Amino acid sequence: MTKQERGIRTRQALICSAAEVFEQHGYVQTRLAEVSAHAGLSTGALHFHFRSKAALADAVESAASESLHRAAREAGQYPANALQSLTDISHVLACLLGRDVVVRAGVQLAQDRNREPSVDFHREWQDCVRQLLARAADEGSLADDVSQEDLATAVVAATMGFLSMSRKNEEWLARHSLTRFWRLILPRVATSRVRSSLAPAGTDSVAAAMAPLTGTVPGTFPQPRHPD
Amino acid sequence: MTKQERGIRTRQALICSAAEVFEQHGYVQTRLAEVSAHAGLSTGALHFHFRSKAALADAVESAASESLHRAAREAGQYPANALQSLTDISHVLACLLGRDVVVRAGVQLAQDRNREPSVDFHREWQDCVRQLLARAADEGSLADDVSQEDLATAVVAATMGFLSMSRKNEEWLARHSLTRFWRLILPRVATSRVRSSLAPAGTDSVAAAMAPLTGTVPGTFPQPRHPD
Repeated sequence: MTKQERGIRTRQALICSAAEVFEQHGYVQTRLAEVSAHAGLSTGALHFHFRSKAALADAVESAASESLHRAAREAGQYPANALQSLTDISHVLACLLGRDVVVRAGVQLAQDRNREPSVDFHREWQDCVRQLLARAADEGSLADDVSQEDLATAVVAATMGFLSMSRKNEEWLARHSLTRFWRLILPRVATSRVRSSLAPAGTDSVAAAMAPLTGTVPGTFPQPRHPD
Repeated sequence: MTKQERGIRTRQALICSAAEVFEQHGYVQTRLAEVSAHAGLSTGALHFHFRSKAALADAVESAASESLHRAAREAGQYPANALQSLTDISHVLACLLGRDVVVRAGVQLAQDRNREPSVDFHREWQDCVRQLLARAADEGSLADDVSQEDLATAVVAATMGFLSMSRKNEEWLARHSLTRFWRLILPRVATSRVRSSLAPAGTDSVAAAMAPLTGTVPGTFPQPRHPD
């Protein structure tokens, strides 16, 4: 292993360790000494990579953002229509939030009132939902009497609710919970042309998108097969 | 004013002050000295009424719970069917959360991982939604092909999402935001018999239920007109 590779690994270990400590104690109560000890490293090693707690939190947030974007790209490229893409992406993001402490901590840090977030996850998710619903309307899979803005509001609110409820009970991020939401919504907003083909539990692309993400640490994801 | 009345007023002033400080700084970072100073009272007066920060947080939580229950009872008793009651109650609770710092702080304290909550607002809201949907099914206002459990999941997730998003942008608790959700959902889950009579923005009972609650402090609400 080269010196550069060791440096990258140390940085990743510190980001993972920080995510665990941030998730457990919150931003204000996290001590850098605990982060380095938890990673089995010296405080000197930590300060070599991150000059402050704020820089470390920014790094966790960036890693979370990168993972979410990559997972959304992976999940969104296969389904036959935009409503299914949206469904699949929501399942993959929920799965990632359930499994990956860096993603969870990053999203939580972005909502922490004691620091200035570097990523606006809410805004990015709203934009993603809006774009996919506009595509669904363009391709004729959204029923004419459905207001895109009303549906976007419902989807964003519900998905943020699943995330919020999961802090007390992780069942809310389980695939069957989100499936309940889509099973109610999809048949009632889709045109008859696509209705029967829609899968509220997500398609095979959910599993395909999750497979390379399981058990990884930030920065080690394989390149997406079809980079955008 | 009798000594007892003065005592009640002091206690209410401390609960309001605590709610403001808890909301701003969170449970861990709230100092009792700041709460008493913010209420224009001595720390001695505070300790006479509340023996600890935990007791003060419990009192804020209880006051929030009392306000939410009373508002839900008020809003839920007039509408002609259970789907409209659910819609009206959600509007009143959102309005209360937007206006009343004690309610906001109480709900927030119940989610704070640094203390043991004395009220489970999530569970109470879930039970309320489930009961109203069961009533809607019984009275024949819920379409046969709608799963009560799927709809309850969607309603609970979405309403918790509105609350969660409102922490960054209070527009999410505005009546027009929640109306978007109900405008999408109601016509798609109601039977044709009640569909045209449903008001996604809520009925007059929303305003009626909010009127006595505006600008009040906990414990000073008028008695409900039809106590249950």
